[in-house]
Amino acid sequence: MAIYRAPLRDMQFVLHELLNVESTLTALPGYQDANRDLIDSVLEEAAKFAQEVLFPLNRSGDEEGCTLVDGKVTTPKGFKAAYDQFREGGWTGLDCDPTYGGQGLPKTLGFPISEMNVSANMAWSMYPGLSHGAYAAIHAHGSDEQKATYLPPLVDGSWTGTMCLTEPHCGTDLGLIKSRAEPLGDGSYRISGTKIFISSGEHDLADNIVHLVLARLPDAPRDIKGISLFIVPKFLPADGGVGERNPVSCGSLEHKMGIKANATCVMNFDGAVGYLIGEPNRGMSCMFTMMNAARLGVGMQGLGLNEVSYQSALAYAKDRLQMRALTGPVAPEKPADPIIVHPDVRRMLLTMKAYAEAGRAFSSWLAVLLDVEDRAEDTEQRQDAADLLALLIPVAKAFMTDNGFETTNHGVQIFGGHGFIREWGMEQFVRDARISLLYEGTNGIQAMDLIGRKVLMDQGAKLRKFTKLVHRFCQEQEGRAEMAEFVAPLAALNKQLGEVTMKIGMAAMQNKDEAGAAASDYLRLLGHLVYGWFWARMVAISLPKADEPFYAAKISTARFYYAKLMPETHALIAKLATGAQPLMSLDQDHFAF
Amino acid sequence: MAIYRAPLRDMQFVLHELLNVESTLTALPGYQDANRDLIDSVLEEAAKFAQEVLFPLNRSGDEEGCTLVDGKVTTPKGFKAAYDQFREGGWTGLDCDPTYGGQGLPKTLGFPISEMNVSANMAWSMYPGLSHGAYAAIHAHGSDEQKATYLPPLVDGSWTGTMCLTEPHCGTDLGLIKSRAEPLGDGSYRISGTKIFISSGEHDLADNIVHLVLARLPDAPRDIKGISLFIVPKFLPADGGVGERNPVSCGSLEHKMGIKANATCVMNFDGAVGYLIGEPNRGMSCMFTMMNAARLGVGMQGLGLNEVSYQSALAYAKDRLQMRALTGPVAPEKPADPIIVHPDVRRMLLTMKAYAEAGRAFSSWLAVLLDVEDRAEDTEQRQDAADLLALLIPVAKAFMTDNGFETTNHGVQIFGGHGFIREWGMEQFVRDARISLLYEGTNGIQAMDLIGRKVLMDQGAKLRKFTKLVHRFCQEQEGRAEMAEFVAPLAALNKQLGEVTMKIGMAAMQNKDEAGAAASDYLRLLGHLVYGWFWARMVAISLPKADEPFYAAKISTARFYYAKLMPETHALIAKLATGAQPLMSLDQDHFAF
Repeated sequence: MAIYRAPLRDMQFVLHELLNVESTLTALPGYQDANRDLIDSVLEEAAKFAQEVLFPLNRSGDEEGCTLVDGKVTTPKGFKAAYDQFREGGWTGLDCDPTYGGQGLPKTLGFPISEMNVSANMAWSMYPGLSHGAYAAIHAHGSDEQKATYLPPLVDGSWTGTMCLTEPHCGTDLGLIKSRAEPLGDGSYRISGTKIFISSGEHDLADNIVHLVLARLPDAPRDIKGISLFIVPKFLPADGGVGERNPVSCGSLEHKMGIKANATCVMNFDGAVGYLIGEPNRGMSCMFTMMNAARLGVGMQGLGLNEVSYQSALAYAKDRLQMRALTGPVAPEKPADPIIVHPDVRRMLLTMKAYAEAGRAFSSWLAVLLDVEDRAEDTEQRQDAADLLALLIPVAKAFMTDNGFETTNHGVQIFGGHGFIREWGMEQFVRDARISLLYEGTNGIQAMDLIGRKVLMDQGAKLRKFTKLVHRFCQEQEGRAEMAEFVAPLAALNKQLGEVTMKIGMAAMQNKDEAGAAASDYLRLLGHLVYGWFWARMVAISLPKADEPFYAAKISTARFYYAKLMPETHALIAKLATGAQPLMSLDQDHFAF
Repeated sequence: MAIYRAPLRDMQFVLHELLNVESTLTALPGYQDANRDLIDSVLEEAAKFAQEVLFPLNRSGDEEGCTLVDGKVTTPKGFKAAYDQFREGGWTGLDCDPTYGGQGLPKTLGFPISEMNVSANMAWSMYPGLSHGAYAAIHAHGSDEQKATYLPPLVDGSWTGTMCLTEPHCGTDLGLIKSRAEPLGDGSYRISGTKIFISSGEHDLADNIVHLVLARLPDAPRDIKGISLFIVPKFLPADGGVGERNPVSCGSLEHKMGIKANATCVMNFDGAVGYLIGEPNRGMSCMFTMMNAARLGVGMQGLGLNEVSYQSALAYAKDRLQMRALTGPVAPEKPADPIIVHPDVRRMLLTMKAYAEAGRAFSSWLAVLLDVEDRAEDTEQRQDAADLLALLIPVAKAFMTDNGFETTNHGVQIFGGHGFIREWGMEQFVRDARISLLYEGTNGIQAMDLIGRKVLMDQGAKLRKFTKLVHRFCQEQEGRAEMAEFVAPLAALNKQLGEVTMKIGMAAMQNKDEAGAAASDYLRLLGHLVYGWFWARMVAISLPKADEPFYAAKISTARFYYAKLMPETHALIAKLATGAQPLMSLDQDHFAF
């Protein structure tokens, strides 16, 4: 069966030993109290909630799903009680502005908690998760009145939020949006249109739902520059509570591969009253301001499912007896050896472990950068953080979710036939993980964003900010003989990435398809450079403490990563060298006969 | 939505132009009539059945699943009618012995038909598929009386069959089997025990179900050498029909990730009457005689799902409008370009296409080898076929199903968010494909079988039979300048594989874990050599006809394969070079803290 214990020890290692977040965070205005003790005690409480409240609802939520009757959506048994408990614990406002009732803690804390909640119950975690996005958009772009009206109930969780972007004919290409907003003369608008794939679009957890809706004003340009963002509440706010029902309704629930306990809704806006947020026709840039956090949030889903699948597979591999070790019985007193003795089972377990721990380090660092970007007093420090985030967020989203899908599948494979059976819980992680490669921009779109907007558009300026970090690390470690096995290949990969980038850039100047053709392979190449850097950094910290098993395991896992995962880069570099021609030469009418 | 048309043109290319099966088959005793016209007309009829009867039941079957009430299993609506039609068409006995009512056609024909049936409806295809395994076992090992009793109804499909191997505590390790067989004194046995994961174990399609059950005789050795094979019919045969109900029953149906329309049963044998097949304690070798066909059958599942997912994704990619081509609008009259213009979408489509077509060529060749092994008059020819099959069947099973899982996931990805929604049909292919990596020996077990039993055990003798074929092909093509782009990397990979094999062999002599650690990477390495060989062969045939789009597409797809898929070998070789140490060094107690 699936099991879950929050990986607090590893989280502490990452936050305190690897990243030393206390020193960074307490230097930021407003976060003076974010010291190690506070961080650890918050994480410990969050762990209890994830393990004891959310995880027991994960399988039942998947089996039960959501139901729509007469326009009302019912979430699975126990979901509302868990949500109430989450609210009462103050978790909905953890990193929110104290002005509106939030606890004002750094974002750095929010992400490990997200990881735990996803591990324990991804579908459930999406209800508060989406609210947080709505909070962030209104906080950044709303008027004072909008903030006063909407933020307190979003912060205390009595209301939840959604993002209404996709329409049946457009997901990736939001320039095609058809939903309309007509001015009512009193400053409000009448919103009409149909939105699909609206996560948490309707449910029974909260008193009100605040939809953030992309729509077009009457005179708007017909492309991506003609889209505005509106607040469309399910119930119109009145006297600090809710008033009249707005004509926005859930037309149907999607039947999905996974995240069945999250209500994915078709939302019909039938002339619903809406309020413009930010400037007219600037809806996309409003969305973009919260894109980094949202995409990192999806990356955390890959990580969270990787972790829970790993823990479950590890327990099973130690328990399940099948065959003898190739080198002779390890447990001769038993009818067979536990399957963890088999190299191929270890290969899968270590892949899961190596990706989870590197992903945790990487995402925690990005979370710190989000806080720095937000709060640092030094302009250059803020800009560096913003540039690194712009560059690496697509990597976090795509690399972590691709790896999440791969590793949850290893989890199934380790369970053998039982992995395919629902009651064992392993196949749910695969089905839940699958959406993370699709939404918030497919992983192909992340790759295009990376190579096109983030790397080539500024001639590699942002990229060099990152590769310099790697370079500096390699230089710092040069004198340590025991680091050579990591530093040499890391430095080589760093150099190769630079060369490959140059080649793609030159080729793309002649033919833009060269960038598109390179995108996915390039993203994974950069992903391995990032993870290679983190594994080497973790080794650098662990070597002096290698007599403690925790640190010895870090070194051992790093060696596995360098030996068995990072070599994917050899294939990626070879594929990148072949360019766009092999992809583009076949006429679209000749793909099948 | 998912669509399906049997790829007859490509099947004909493979069977007639690439493999020239007519000349091989008509030279085999009993297959004199298996000429091109006969083959093509059989495939055309099979295509109609798959497209028109099976495919329309695929989504509904998945949604409905099977139900168990009072010991009776009901299959989804339409399944029985389809099965009746299949029987009436004579399909159940296509390649069966005419002595027992079969049509006596070569196995070579059975596999493309399997591919079609899987593409159209994998869950349904498993009902007749399992029967065929039972037929083969009884035909090979049954007494004359057993054959006379069981084969005619299995051949005409009025009875179906199962394979009852797995028990709750043992899947891979059948040496742990506990089911017991006690002699009743009249030559029959009383079978007791519980079997799990029994595909088609109970259902409403046929009058009787013939279970082939592995169990232990009272005095049997306690390991894998103490297992015997028994026929245990649901109803005891009587007067050419069925008589008394045997105490074998379906205790429950598994709730699974996929193949929901196939009844996966827990089967309880409560002192059921059974009949020994073959020699006592030789049950495993009875099973092994049909292992090759069964494993190739599972490989076909990977191929069939790859194909249907490809066709569906291709149609969607031509139809779905989203964004403009990077190089400028391709369909300026439309609001956006069809997504097939995007290099990353083409990368996924071409991956699906390249794996499907290479898999079809490979599996068809193996099917011919099965016929040659079975029927050739020349001993050496039979032995060569047997050796190549022994070597390559694990590759077919694991490489084709791994690729099937990868490609069905590409199909989901191309559909974007819609890929995750059940009604579109794409995610079902992923869920159905997932089991093929697990059953009939997990893909890790295939890899161990390959490196251990098939490659190292005879010091590479079987492997050299294959690499010589590749070498000879490369030599033959040496003079053709236009083949150089394929022959050079193919010959290089062939050589590298030999060197890698030698290294693994040397290392494994010191430490058997070196073989286990290499297994999965080695299998994929050999898989790419096989597919590279087939792609080069297909190019060699296509070059002279390159002015016809069908052949031009073959050449283009081959270039894609060499440019974007075969380079995985660079990673595999690098990983293989690092050996077992990175997998084995971490103490099993230090995987988590």
